[in-house]
Amino acid sequence: MKYKKLYIPGPVEVSKDILEEMSHWMVGHRSSDYKELHSAVIPKLKKLLFTENYHVFLGTHSSTGWMEAAVKNCVHKKVLSCVCGAFSKRWNEIAAACGLENDKYEVPWGHGYDPVEIDKRLASGEYDAVTVVHNETSTGVMNKLEEIAEVVKKYPDVSLLVDAVSSMTGVKIEVEKLDVDVILAGVQKAFALPPGLAVVAVSPKAMQKSEAAKNKGYYFDFKVFEKYAAKDNTPTTPVISLIFALNKMLDKMFAEGLDKRFARHLEMAERVRGWGEEHFELYAQPGFRSNTLTTIKNTKGISVADLNKKLGEEGLAISNGYGKIKEETFRIAHMGDFIMDDIEQILSAIDKILGF
Amino acid sequence: MKYKKLYIPGPVEVSKDILEEMSHWMVGHRSSDYKELHSAVIPKLKKLLFTENYHVFLGTHSSTGWMEAAVKNCVHKKVLSCVCGAFSKRWNEIAAACGLENDKYEVPWGHGYDPVEIDKRLASGEYDAVTVVHNETSTGVMNKLEEIAEVVKKYPDVSLLVDAVSSMTGVKIEVEKLDVDVILAGVQKAFALPPGLAVVAVSPKAMQKSEAAKNKGYYFDFKVFEKYAAKDNTPTTPVISLIFALNKMLDKMFAEGLDKRFARHLEMAERVRGWGEEHFELYAQPGFRSNTLTTIKNTKGISVADLNKKLGEEGLAISNGYGKIKEETFRIAHMGDFIMDDIEQILSAIDKILGF
Repeated sequence: MKYKKLYIPGPVEVSKDILEEMSHWMVGHRSSDYKELHSAVIPKLKKLLFTENYHVFLGTHSSTGWMEAAVKNCVHKKVLSCVCGAFSKRWNEIAAACGLENDKYEVPWGHGYDPVEIDKRLASGEYDAVTVVHNETSTGVMNKLEEIAEVVKKYPDVSLLVDAVSSMTGVKIEVEKLDVDVILAGVQKAFALPPGLAVVAVSPKAMQKSEAAKNKGYYFDFKVFEKYAAKDNTPTTPVISLIFALNKMLDKMFAEGLDKRFARHLEMAERVRGWGEEHFELYAQPGFRSNTLTTIKNTKGISVADLNKKLGEEGLAISNGYGKIKEETFRIAHMGDFIMDDIEQILSAIDKILGF
Repeated sequence: MKYKKLYIPGPVEVSKDILEEMSHWMVGHRSSDYKELHSAVIPKLKKLLFTENYHVFLGTHSSTGWMEAAVKNCVHKKVLSCVCGAFSKRWNEIAAACGLENDKYEVPWGHGYDPVEIDKRLASGEYDAVTVVHNETSTGVMNKLEEIAEVVKKYPDVSLLVDAVSSMTGVKIEVEKLDVDVILAGVQKAFALPPGLAVVAVSPKAMQKSEAAKNKGYYFDFKVFEKYAAKDNTPTTPVISLIFALNKMLDKMFAEGLDKRFARHLEMAERVRGWGEEHFELYAQPGFRSNTLTTIKNTKGISVADLNKKLGEEGLAISNGYGKIKEETFRIAHMGDFIMDDIEQILSAIDKILGF
């Protein structure tokens, strides 16, 4: 197995110091050592998410676990699944697999949600929750979360459930101001950690809803997490190595400064978009282009597999398209620890291979 | 935070080379690199569990996740929860939290299950599954899995669901010969890896049952795992660092030899039991004493907290009792990479502190 620098939208490239932190010796998860770690991490996450009053939980599972948790704890009536790509579609499938009543509001791939359309549907009074993917990792669409949140605020009985899997820490998300009920992410995307840990912020309103939820199981029950959180702990043995690494990474984020971090992501995105428009086309509609990854339409009919093979020989990797647009698109991630030099490195490597 | 050598029943002490493997660079989970890793690990796990025909899945979650999966996929009618301590009790709570019909067969803490009693209950025809904890980490009881399996074989419609969380790799478990339907473990116990990954073996019969299970959700659906396993993959982003570490650890296990490994665990157990009987009493009934951890009755009324504090000053840690026997017992784990020298180290340290 040969090392490749990852420009794929997760797991992303992880820096050497963070990989080294993954080697931290073990501590008992019911020990004061773990308590010390846990109670260091949670306030930093709250600061990162601009919240004081929400619960923030550490989930030893992938982001998908929190997606399942969100609907299990917060859907009593019927959920409106807003679908704009593979991962938002999966959230609908998860709701159905949990036996929950659901409807889809679907836009074509590459498009973002229209808040007016969401408003119209919620006005029916049928729904008590809506699932929204902020940053669709398959299409490179970043939805207008603030506008959607404004709409959902009109319906106090509707929980706003947000997948920020590939945007959290790359884009400013003021959780409490937005009044979202559940917002989740995995740490292998813009956090730039190895996978296996997912973070969620849960509103007091969602915690109340969880209390009344039936057949929600144990592993994804917010109320169980709340009980253990009161003791700076988790219900089951957590993925301790990743929590050590997360603690170190959060310090690095604040050392950079959040505003600088968000600006860096935007700057990298603009560079990749410009390159994509120069040589191909962008898959996401104007106004909906992600700050953390760019999905590029393969208008030149290149072989993405060949391109990636040649990049691999130079120790680099980008991603092909996802799901039904696997062959028609390719994706370049520009998130996590990357700086402009990293972006120039991959773009010039592609330029050279494709003869641009 | 000061380093302590862990004699607690998980997370256990992790060797330096395994901790270093946790620093492995990342690979894309849909890449050929990950496929290579996944397809190296699964056959080794099958060999470890003495099975060829079962599915073995890698779960990015704690063992509790597979406990929830087991009942969700395999209980259509009613489950008999065999309870002999805190973790077997939790399995019953999980079944209830999933909205499943359930009954308890309960024995006093420190006792093991009586296969005759299980037989009697299954004979009612009420149940289509039974949950059994092989090695109760709270009480140090190791149940007679072979005898229980013989009983359950009489009832072909009853799924035998086994928690081998703290026994797997420390004790020989011939999965296929036993005809268990689901058997699960976390890697932070006798596997001697950091926590965050759990392993499960699932029988073809259990896979069929999963197909008919309703409202089982997505994250813990065996059928979803099966679909991705066919591509040497997992449904969601797995905890890649731990899978690299697991691969290395499996090689170490086979290099030692499984029989030697099981014998080593027994030998360490006998030493700790002897010491426990000399100075205190053993909590588990004769014939039911675990090969991987020993729960000792605090007959001398020592302060376990003080003892652990003094051990901590020497860079060592044992565990207090669990749940309702927190103060009345303490626990010494003798599993994973430990050899007799490690056991002598902790026992002589305790001897010195307590003046034995």
